[in-house]
This record gives sequence, structure tokens and C-alpha cells, in this order.
Amino acid sequence: MRPQAQNPSFPDRERVDRLRLIRSRRVGPATWRRLMAEHGSATRALEALPGIASAAGIERYEVCPVPVALKEMVAGRAQGAAMICLDDPAYPAALAEIADAPPILWLQGDAALLARPMVALVGARNASSLGLRMARKLAAALGEAGYVVVSGLARGIDAEAHEAALDRGTVAVQAGGVDVIYPLENAALAGRIAAAGCRISEQPMGLVPQARHFPQRNRIVSGLAQAVVVVEAAARSGSLITAREALEQGREVLAVPGHPFDPRAAGGNQLIREGATLVRHAADVIEAIGTLRATAPSDPQPDPRRPLCDVAPVHSLILDRLGPVPVPEDQLIRDLSLPAGRVAQELVALELEGRIQRDPGGLVSRPA
Amino acid sequence: MRPQAQNPSFPDRERVDRLRLIRSRRVGPATWRRLMAEHGSATRALEALPGIASAAGIERYEVCPVPVALKEMVAGRAQGAAMICLDDPAYPAALAEIADAPPILWLQGDAALLARPMVALVGARNASSLGLRMARKLAAALGEAGYVVVSGLARGIDAEAHEAALDRGTVAVQAGGVDVIYPLENAALAGRIAAAGCRISEQPMGLVPQARHFPQRNRIVSGLAQAVVVVEAAARSGSLITAREALEQGREVLAVPGHPFDPRAAGGNQLIREGATLVRHAADVIEAIGTLRATAPSDPQPDPRRPLCDVAPVHSLILDRLGPVPVPEDQLIRDLSLPAGRVAQELVALELEGRIQRDPGGLVSRPA
Repeated sequence: MRPQAQNPSFPDRERVDRLRLIRSRRVGPATWRRLMAEHGSATRALEALPGIASAAGIERYEVCPVPVALKEMVAGRAQGAAMICLDDPAYPAALAEIADAPPILWLQGDAALLARPMVALVGARNASSLGLRMARKLAAALGEAGYVVVSGLARGIDAEAHEAALDRGTVAVQAGGVDVIYPLENAALAGRIAAAGCRISEQPMGLVPQARHFPQRNRIVSGLAQAVVVVEAAARSGSLITAREALEQGREVLAVPGHPFDPRAAGGNQLIREGATLVRHAADVIEAIGTLRATAPSDPQPDPRRPLCDVAPVHSLILDRLGPVPVPEDQLIRDLSLPAGRVAQELVALELEGRIQRDPGGLVSRPA
Repeated sequence: MRPQAQNPSFPDRERVDRLRLIRSRRVGPATWRRLMAEHGSATRALEALPGIASAAGIERYEVCPVPVALKEMVAGRAQGAAMICLDDPAYPAALAEIADAPPILWLQGDAALLARPMVALVGARNASSLGLRMARKLAAALGEAGYVVVSGLARGIDAEAHEAALDRGTVAVQAGGVDVIYPLENAALAGRIAAAGCRISEQPMGLVPQARHFPQRNRIVSGLAQAVVVVEAAARSGSLITAREALEQGREVLAVPGHPFDPRAAGGNQLIREGATLVRHAADVIEAIGTLRATAPSDPQPDPRRPLCDVAPVHSLILDRLGPVPVPEDQLIRDLSLPAGRVAQELVALELEGRIQRDPGGLVSRPA
């Protein structure tokens, strides 16, 4: 769902308000999108937000003030970064299709790369030399074939993939602010990517990434790409979580195998057993993308005229169903046997209240 | 199809005639089975055979004489080998289900092993130490789990699998006579297998194996087993051919992966891409066998009263369709749009004439 898709250019006031809306307390990307759909513009959503919060029992809720958003925009410009909004022509089309697409992206480097088809290469930070060599080889060959290589600017596989794809086009997605280089050892590489490729982040300038920001970053890596290739990953590693989320996003998931005696191959082998395509070389990736089914974006279509404030009786039903383990919103809706729109609206209120939490991949949980 | 399944014990005369029938010129296992089905016993099939050959234009066709068969039986007994006929209670049930099941098997060692569930481990002769270690580990663990490990007594993976499974039960299928040890370096192992496990062959005593006997042997390896695991195999290797034939036989095919930079993993990785189950350890094999669909044996049911000699006009139609590249008999029948029984009978005559050749897996070709 792309709000105002008929009118991709919008005034500066709306631009500032869109940033304010996503920077407002307890408004995540999914809630942002829903509020936009309900109210038609960020300006009107900001007007409605205190009332919604109050109806949800939150006292003294304040939306993000104008100066805070302006300060972020000034800081971005000072760093030479560009702000791209969902619905801007420059916003990557594949990313716009995911349910929790970032409402804004900060970008340093060549924005034109975002319009090209991308493949994500992900994998272990402490990769083996075999894994690093494979990352290099795949990145170079995918670049040759015209694909932009997207990864997370981490140590190991990520850094190797960016480096090898630099000449042909690479996009680094950062967990913190686009001006905050993490890890520091990739500072030189980050500079080269800003010069020859591009770096993006949904976070404000200056934000130092914390643990929770990395899975959020990973949904952008896979969201940008047509296919996600796990180059080397141990069992129960972050790359496996990224791969499973990529599947939820409808992305093709592929993995490089390894000998079962090599623990660093356990993640890839497991994914292949679960149905990921086995990758031997870049041609296998390109073949898999070629056979991709054209997947229609799944747009939830709420009734924009339904008031948000009559949902209180459903509260306890939802909270009863939720625990600390994230469950898909779809499943929650099925379990409750309530209309999807009703539950979704209620979730907005509960998220604003801080009583539920949204996780990447359409998951919701109840903080312990 | 198990001819005379209601009457598994049959007189010595029939036993000798069954051996004579399969040792008769140009009678392969599939033709043997068809002749048995047509004529009800080997004795009657032998009586009919010269007439069939003559109708097919072969002059001076002679069936295998009684003394030749008796000599083979005496030689077998002298070596302490037992002859098991298709339909004997001791004949392995899974093997009896394949279309070209050997009409007789010579056996040295413990025949009781043939009644137990089996898993085939196959792979490269020039295996890596990683491959050998994997073969050892899988064989030992499958043995622990109660499976008999079947393989081909070759160098490398085969020998390693037999050795590791010796305590729990292993069956070696030989390409030449059961008394002809090939390769010689496996002589000591072959002795241990005869003592603790069992060795079998469909070939006469004393036969020194030639190139064409190895694929014939491989169909028995996979025919005995519920699942075939390719432990390590290069691209375009014999193990891959075995794996594909195993699929034709309805066997579960599994493969151990390896890093794509290791050429000895190319075969396994390719099989996995084609749908073979990725194996990390014995538990993956056992899980795959557990989920096996109960596959009914596909029995061709020819009309036993149809005369064999009125098929000449169909000759050229069949020969026109065939070339040196083996094609499935099923496909040939479909292409000809003739009744399956008609084509099958004609193929018997053409095989006796030496104008077509049967290959393992129900394939037929026209020798160049």
C-alpha cells in the first residue's frame, strides 16, 4: 500500500509531518502506514494521534514536535544525506511493498542505485576464508550480471560482498544513523561505498545502533532485494532469522551449502533442507530470480471511515492471546475470529500504549 | 511382479531351468520376467524360446544347455555360495519389486541380512578424507539404528561404509562373480564381509567384471535399499547415474552437500538442487525413510494368451523410434500409440535378435 500513490510529490509541510509521525513515540512503520491510510496525510494523522492515545488510556501523549523533525532534516543536510519518503519516486519499489516499509530513508551516495534490481548477500561476521571467497565471487559475478549487491555493512561476509561489488553498485543498509559507522573497522569501506555506491538508514542522524536495531535493519536488506543469499551461517545465527523474514516478505531465499562437518555451514544446510535453493555460483542465483513468480503486494485495506476509539472491549482478548514470543498478526486475527480491520486498529492503540510490540515480519508480542 | 508368488517353492528341475533361461543368449532380466509371465514356468519358456527366436529371424538359436547351468550350480556350491531365485522366501522383497530384478542371486555369507531394511551408501572411489569420515559416521549410525548398509565393494566410500557397518550388518553387491574379488585391495574386507555380513552377485561364478557390469550392479545396490545416500560424488560421476536410477526405482535419494569450491561435492550439490534430500547426519536419512510414501510396485500385466509370433509388422516402427541413446520403454510405447503388451512382446523378440538393447532402469536403445 502506497498512500497517495497518485500524488507522489507532496509539500514540504507534509514531508516534515511524515518525519514527525514516524518519530512520534510508539509509532512504528506498520502503525505509521495504517495511520496514513486512515487519515490520508501525515498532517491529519498527527492531529488525530493525541486523541487516539487518550482513548487508549495514555495520558499526556505528545506527537514529535516540529523543531525535532527540522533538526533531523538540518543534520541530514549537513552530512550531505538525502531524505527519501515512501511514495517519493526515488523510494525503492520492492521495499515499498513490505508491510513495515520504513516511512523515510536517509541516503548517502548514489540514489540511482535504488532503482536497479538488487540481490542481498548476508552471512556470518566471523566467516571462514571459504565463505569470504564465496562472498567475493558471488558479489563480483552478480555485479557483472547487472545486479546491485545489498548487505548490512557488518564484518565478514557483508564487508566482503560490498567491497567486491563496489565497482558495479552496492547498497549498505545501516542499523544506526547513516552517519554512524559501525563497526569502526569498516570506516574506510563505508567511505568508498558513499563515494561509489550508497548507504541508507531509516534511523535519525547520529543514532548509535543497539541490539534491537539490527533485525530492523535486516528487514530493509531483504526488503530491497529480489533474492537473499545466505553465504555462510552457523546454526541459530542472525542470518537465518533474516532468511526466514525474507521468506515472509515473499523474497527468494538461497543458501550456499557446506560440508556437514563444518559448523559454519550448518545454517545454510538447514535452510536448504527447509526449501531454500542451493547456490553453487552466481548463475544459480540469477536462474532463481528468473523463475520468480510475479508476487502481488498484499495490501491490507482497512475501512478509512471506521472510528479508532471504539475498540477498548477487544483489549483484553488480544492481550490474553499474546505473550513474549512474537506471533504473526495474521495468526492472532485468525485465533480471535474478529474482523482483521478491527484487530489491526486495536493493535495500533495497544502499540501506542506500549502494551504490545511490533517486530519485523508482521509479528506482534507482549513485552514481558 | 513375482511369478508363481502363490507357490514359492518349486522343484529342482524348474530351478535349473530358471538359471538356464537367464543364462540363455540375449535374455536379460526384463525379458526373463516377461517370458516367465507368458509361459508360467522356466521349463515352458525354454521350450518356447527357439520358436520365438526363429520367428524373430534368428537362425540356430539355442537355449543355455542343462550341463552349463549344472556346472554353474556345482561351482557355486564348491565356493560355499547359495543360489537364491526370485520368488524364494530368501529373495529380498524390495529388490523383487524393480522391473529388472535379477532372476537369480549368488550369495556368500548371512542370507538373513537380506530380510532386513537396508540403506545404500554410495560415492566416489577417490574420496576425500572428509567423505570417508562421513561414510564411516553414517554407516556406523545407520547400523546402530538397525539398518543394513548396502554398497558396491568399490574403493573409497563403498569400502569405508562396509567396514564401518560390519558389526551391525552390511551387504556387498559385486559386479562380477561372487567369488571374484574386485578390486583386489579389498580382498581382506571381502573376506570379513562374507564372514560377518554377506556378498551377492547376479553373475555366474568366476565372471571377471567388465565396464558394463558396474551399472548393472548399481541397480541391485539401489534396488535392495529403501534409500540411497550419495556421500561424495563429483559431477558426471557414476554415483549420480546410480542416484538417478534409484529415483526411477522409486527409492528415496539423499546426498551429502559440500562447499561449492570443493569439486568432490559437485555431484551431491547437483542432486540436492534436483530435489534429493540434504543429509547432515544419519538422523536425516532415518527421518526421510520414515516419511517414505508406501509405493505400490508397478506390475505390467501382459495378456498371457497373446501369441508372441504375430508381431513382425511392428518391427520397423519400433526400430525407427530408437537410437543409440537409451529411452524409457514407457515413452517408446506412448510415442508408438500401440498397446503396451504388443510393444513389450516385440521388444523381447528384438532383444533376442540383438537389434535392441535393454539398459538398467527400464531403458531401451538401438546399438550403433
